[in-house]
Amino acid sequence: MAAKANDVLEKIVSLSKRRGFVFQSSEIYGGLNGCWDYGPLGVELLKNLKEEWWKFMTYRDNVEGLDASILMHPRVWEASGHVENFTDPMIDCKQCKSRFRVDILADSIAVKKQRKMLDTAAPKLVTHWLYAGGANVSDFDDSKVAEIFTSILEDKEFNSVLIEELNCPQCGNKGTFTSPRNFNLMFKTFVGPVEDSGSVVYLRPETAQGIFVNFLNVHTAARQKIPFGIAQIGKAFRNEINTKYFLFRTREFEQMEMQFFVNPDADKQWYDYWKAERLEWFKNLGISPYKLRYHDHPANKLAHYAKEAADIEYEFPFGWGEIEGIHNRTNFDLTRHEEFSGKSQKYFDEESKEKFIPFIIETSAGASRAFMAFLVDAYREETVNNELRVVLKLHPRLAPLKAAILPLVNKDGMPEYSRKMETDLRKRFKVFYDDKGAVGRRYRRQDEAGTPFAITVDTQTIEDDTVTIRERDTMVQERISSSRVAEYLFEKLG
Amino acid sequence: MAAKANDVLEKIVSLSKRRGFVFQSSEIYGGLNGCWDYGPLGVELLKNLKEEWWKFMTYRDNVEGLDASILMHPRVWEASGHVENFTDPMIDCKQCKSRFRVDILADSIAVKKQRKMLDTAAPKLVTHWLYAGGANVSDFDDSKVAEIFTSILEDKEFNSVLIEELNCPQCGNKGTFTSPRNFNLMFKTFVGPVEDSGSVVYLRPETAQGIFVNFLNVHTAARQKIPFGIAQIGKAFRNEINTKYFLFRTREFEQMEMQFFVNPDADKQWYDYWKAERLEWFKNLGISPYKLRYHDHPANKLAHYAKEAADIEYEFPFGWGEIEGIHNRTNFDLTRHEEFSGKSQKYFDEESKEKFIPFIIETSAGASRAFMAFLVDAYREETVNNELRVVLKLHPRLAPLKAAILPLVNKDGMPEYSRKMETDLRKRFKVFYDDKGAVGRRYRRQDEAGTPFAITVDTQTIEDDTVTIRERDTMVQERISSSRVAEYLFEKLG
Repeated sequence: MAAKANDVLEKIVSLSKRRGFVFQSSEIYGGLNGCWDYGPLGVELLKNLKEEWWKFMTYRDNVEGLDASILMHPRVWEASGHVENFTDPMIDCKQCKSRFRVDILADSIAVKKQRKMLDTAAPKLVTHWLYAGGANVSDFDDSKVAEIFTSILEDKEFNSVLIEELNCPQCGNKGTFTSPRNFNLMFKTFVGPVEDSGSVVYLRPETAQGIFVNFLNVHTAARQKIPFGIAQIGKAFRNEINTKYFLFRTREFEQMEMQFFVNPDADKQWYDYWKAERLEWFKNLGISPYKLRYHDHPANKLAHYAKEAADIEYEFPFGWGEIEGIHNRTNFDLTRHEEFSGKSQKYFDEESKEKFIPFIIETSAGASRAFMAFLVDAYREETVNNELRVVLKLHPRLAPLKAAILPLVNKDGMPEYSRKMETDLRKRFKVFYDDKGAVGRRYRRQDEAGTPFAITVDTQTIEDDTVTIRERDTMVQERISSSRVAEYLFEKLG
Repeated sequence: MAAKANDVLEKIVSLSKRRGFVFQSSEIYGGLNGCWDYGPLGVELLKNLKEEWWKFMTYRDNVEGLDASILMHPRVWEASGHVENFTDPMIDCKQCKSRFRVDILADSIAVKKQRKMLDTAAPKLVTHWLYAGGANVSDFDDSKVAEIFTSILEDKEFNSVLIEELNCPQCGNKGTFTSPRNFNLMFKTFVGPVEDSGSVVYLRPETAQGIFVNFLNVHTAARQKIPFGIAQIGKAFRNEINTKYFLFRTREFEQMEMQFFVNPDADKQWYDYWKAERLEWFKNLGISPYKLRYHDHPANKLAHYAKEAADIEYEFPFGWGEIEGIHNRTNFDLTRHEEFSGKSQKYFDEESKEKFIPFIIETSAGASRAFMAFLVDAYREETVNNELRVVLKLHPRLAPLKAAILPLVNKDGMPEYSRKMETDLRKRFKVFYDDKGAVGRRYRRQDEAGTPFAITVDTQTIEDDTVTIRERDTMVQERISSSRVAEYLFEKLG
């Protein structure tokens, strides 16, 4: 099962490169880990899904758009808590100077060995730390042992006894590790000519803060009253040590975030509203409903700013993974920004004559992750006439190319007729012209690109101004008047 | 005249903030120099102009799209020459540790004083350096003196005698400056957990290189033959010491670049083609033609990679400024990437059976600068009925809001009728509903936002299903059937 799952992912990575959806960044230089480039088909799919999100979220009278800069004042990240808390514990080998994330280092040690180390080096620790009443390592199954082991390794008060026993996976030496230190996941750089602490700025690790600091600007300029939201699409960066699963965990990625400012009394109502709206969005764009689910965060696992939180998860070949989060962030963010900036972030409610800091309901989707979910979900292998057909069953509005124009042969005025049709359609649709090879192969190429409609120009076309339109998913062909093609596409693309 | 020009720019900056086109980045923290946020109206204008560019450039059968990552492999910037050459000479005061760009430091010194320093401290230098045959400082006018002064200060072989005589503008001490050093304008950061020279990466200072390194990927995946182009819109970053003129020179900005790969024999033809196309694009979107011009670079001022180059300039309130560059980059870029990556970048021409590195014709526009040009060009102050009318005469396709729906009074079923119309139109257009205040004031607010059409719902509407549509520029009102409104907008928006 796992092998098969990896097969699917591998096939999609391979199709992505071959057909120009996604390339490795800087590939001719060996690539840059955690960064990807969207090719000709990929950039259209990405644009289309961002546009669908934008229309769905901002073509409302209570949501405004925003595009804040990636570089922001460094105090923003002090207020947000990222400077202090957006960290992973890292550990260095004093011998070979290698650096490891603690949980990854723990993962690299067989559970059997972990069990033994806990049992011999730290049995009291297990007892003391986890269960004041007494417990034995042998009481726990493997996954619990791994969890305890990692937790103790990350705990600064208690980890020294284990650290002394560890071998470095790089140089093999034992007891050479430093105590773990927190490593911030924000990329930092310097503005201006001097590289010192006074000129540090960060690449934003999330787009949300750009919205929070503009709350009053947007409120005033757009004359909005709460409840209202601010939506933004943009890049964010995290110096992930452990990138994985193609576009799933990358260092550079794109977010589609909306922050909805509400009266504290109405938080639950709006949280439920947006949670439902966001799942609908994915479903409306054709993702298999049974591959979507909510994951509600239990109260004891909520982030420090959250009162309630849920993920929308998609079942990727490697398992369920978050593609969007919905959070009730309370008044945490605006309270912090008021405190750190000294500028009041209070909202005056004209009806109740009250002044308060609004609560925020956040919908935070990954554009890159959504791209991958749509791509994976659309990928099908079918057997048609004893041949393998690979087809991307993308929603027509998401499909990179809307139609292909295929003259059956290169004579009898067909090329001229087809080129004319291409020129006309191009004014409104992204279309593709292909006159190379057998028409069956041309259909297959468009199936693989996810093109929903293929228009064939044949000898009858020249006689009676009709063409056939083949629908990608059903492969059914329909003969319609050439003059109706644009209208046909317009209707189908909604 | 200069005062008036600044007035216009100030008015636009003020309108931008007030109406939500552009806010200062991180404003509540005092702002971040050289970074700006696009507000609700600004983000729509920016999106619309990028979309117009994208359609104009990539809805062709010989141009493909791309969206490459901002972080790239560091070797890219060695190959491109940016690591070595993308620098400004900077000078440090040893006393107070202040750092200055040499040309800015020179500018801060009165020409009279510059003249005196050249005359007393470095008369031989002037003679030796500029005119082997002998020359006096008094032979030159002020602007020439300033030019000589700056040039000598930047010249490492000859600048020491001037540097010794300089006073630091910060601490006032004399002779405290170091020799100038080159300061790279790329922002740098570190990937992975270790901050050392092996993990340095840069924020791309231009989007072009993302295209060059994907030339073969796109060529293969899209099965394109030369001549063909690759187009990309994306952010770029430069650590400018001297940001200025609102959105004109910023540290974070967006580019719209297209690189067209051609046979070396056809370079001139395609250079001329794209140079003409690009000017047309600005004109078609309504920029005043007399405020646009070409600036052809003289042969002795060409960049090291360029065979021919021209800027498209717009006349901003502060003077003519580049909004786009068209360059014949020859085979410089791909040759360098072949050399640095060890991967052949040669193209095999099936017709001539020749292998060669293509020439590149580049069209490089600033999205942020184009945004500013469209905004400045659209800004008008008119006197209507003895009142000032501020109006943004933006092309309807660029306008942030396409139509406003204005019920004349809040009774007689008008709100319901208007809300219904709003809901219907919103499916396809970004529209705005406003029922607050006198209708004349509501018109003015839409004029200022650049909304091309205002739809008024009045008592007659309820009787006969007609509305008035007011056209922004002419202020002419037309009465049409409600059922025709969507079609009307669709036609006008082309």
